Amino acid sequence: MALLLTGRWDAAERDAWLAHLQQALPGEQWLLDAPRDAAEAAAVEVAIVANPAHGVLQGLPNLRLIQSVWAGVDKLLTDPTLPAGVPLARMVDPAMNEAMVQTALWALLGLHRGFLEVQAQQQQALWRQPEQLRAHEWQVLVLGLGELGGRVARTLSSLGYAVSGWSTTMRPAQQDGVNCLQGEAALAQALAAADTVINLLPLTESTRGFFNAARFAQMKRGASLVNLARGAHVLEADLLAALDARQLSHAVLDVFTVEPLPAEHAFWRHAHITVLPHTAAQTDPRSAAAVVAANLQALRSSQPLAHRVERQRGY
Amino acid sequence: MALLLTGRWDAAERDAWLAHLQQALPGEQWLLDAPRDAAEAAAVEVAIVANPAHGVLQGLPNLRLIQSVWAGVDKLLTDPTLPAGVPLARMVDPAMNEAMVQTALWALLGLHRGFLEVQAQQQQALWRQPEQLRAHEWQVLVLGLGELGGRVARTLSSLGYAVSGWSTTMRPAQQDGVNCLQGEAALAQALAAADTVINLLPLTESTRGFFNAARFAQMKRGASLVNLARGAHVLEADLLAALDARQLSHAVLDVFTVEPLPAEHAFWRHAHITVLPHTAAQTDPRSAAAVVAANLQALRSSQPLAHRVERQRGY
Repeated sequence: MALLLTGRWDAAERDAWLAHLQQALPGEQWLLDAPRDAAEAAAVEVAIVANPAHGVLQGLPNLRLIQSVWAGVDKLLTDPTLPAGVPLARMVDPAMNEAMVQTALWALLGLHRGFLEVQAQQQQALWRQPEQLRAHEWQVLVLGLGELGGRVARTLSSLGYAVSGWSTTMRPAQQDGVNCLQGEAALAQALAAADTVINLLPLTESTRGFFNAARFAQMKRGASLVNLARGAHVLEADLLAALDARQLSHAVLDVFTVEPLPAEHAFWRHAHITVLPHTAAQTDPRSAAAVVAANLQALRSSQPLAHRVERQRGY
Repeated sequence: MALLLTGRWDAAERDAWLAHLQQALPGEQWLLDAPRDAAEAAAVEVAIVANPAHGVLQGLPNLRLIQSVWAGVDKLLTDPTLPAGVPLARMVDPAMNEAMVQTALWALLGLHRGFLEVQAQQQQALWRQPEQLRAHEWQVLVLGLGELGGRVARTLSSLGYAVSGWSTTMRPAQQDGVNCLQGEAALAQALAAADTVINLLPLTESTRGFFNAARFAQMKRGASLVNLARGAHVLEADLLAALDARQLSHAVLDVFTVEPLPAEHAFWRHAHITVLPHTAAQTDPRSAAAVVAANLQALRSSQPLAHRVERQRGY
């Protein structure tokens, strides 16, 4: 049996992953990119994937697990040839979790404490102190309370922020200081109250285009948006209109409809948009390799798989 | 008996303080700015001060406490007429503590995660992801482990950073994950290892000019400096030379030799300096008024005063 490592990445990135995986999984047989013949295809027990080209995972008769090395599987699920009966697991990497919390925190501090504004003032040699509000006076709404959103919400709460979290999954009303909400009515109320909204929703058919003109109109005037999830959550023209009307004061965006963000895109030069180059949180092959190894061991010892994707739900 | 409120501030700021102090201390007699005659001078029991003009605090025969509303008393102590026998207390304000932690964290995240660099890239529509290191791979050295430095160090440690703290006061070797250091040899070693140095030392005769060419040369090549203490800790010309030689990669500065930073100052336009307008942490009159009230009560009930300044030591 063999492990197939395949993805849309360059050879250097693939080889870096291979080196870390080989260290975490000594003694395994490896196939790279795609099986070259029927014998190799028959040997594939597990596919370790990074958004591989459509079709690569079909015709693998003994495939028992598809393990994504990326956290988001929205692109993977668009492959119509994805083998239906094979369990699919997404990556939950401690390094990525940590990085996402850091990015959310940096963006929030820049908005809450006015540091982004102060940086713009530096361009004009302008000495002007922003208002200093307490963390508990700053309402934060985290959308999505999964692995990443939940961690972000709890950390912000531990630092004193007034944190609500909204998700489509039922949760206890209070978790580590986070006020947990469900449903459209609660969402409307929370959007109207939040000074900063942080998006960490999964991308599914029901969350695509979530941030549109109607949603921006529900938000508190002058609030800010931090999008750390997927570009397709946001209608970019509606966001520009909301910023230009000062309905929103600022957006920190890590993800975009087209990535890399084209050089001519209006976001680059917008005074009230901070562009991050999809750098909020990357999977770290050093820690992710151990996560892959643990799931492989679970598979072989018939233990429950970690972070299994529910394909119907979309994450 | 009366309370004298005096400082170098405008009437609006003074009146805001007075309103909060009157709420925290109902039924007190108040004098503003300076006593107008000998009877008023004799009535002053406590002076609540914000760097008042030199001489204002002399000739108050019944003065029992000088309570600063600012955390730093270095300017206050330069008044040669400051009554020698009267206890002096500085401000330790929960809002200020919280704000300082936030600012240190924002600056550190910007340096560690490359967000400051990413913001500069946005000016050129440049999509380039910085390297993502784990927090534990980033060595932070906090100089000064008092009320502010101690909190900053502990919070950074709780978020996973590798934190050392250096101070002139003996402390346990480990405190909440912070590796506590003393002495010149340990300092040299810690400076050579730190990726980011955060200055929260008190300004005294022995720390004035602390960051000079020799000190920058002791630092790890490419390290960064965050100065949240006093402008006089840093020799500005030496800092520019260290940045221009790339010995230091970046400086985040909240305090300057002359404030507001003059419009023609080289710091404003330096690509590797982030200028904050002395906004890292301000005393919040809402919470500070309660601190003043508690110390006044301690004085009147002969309990120990909080945050008493040792004048010899300078803080």
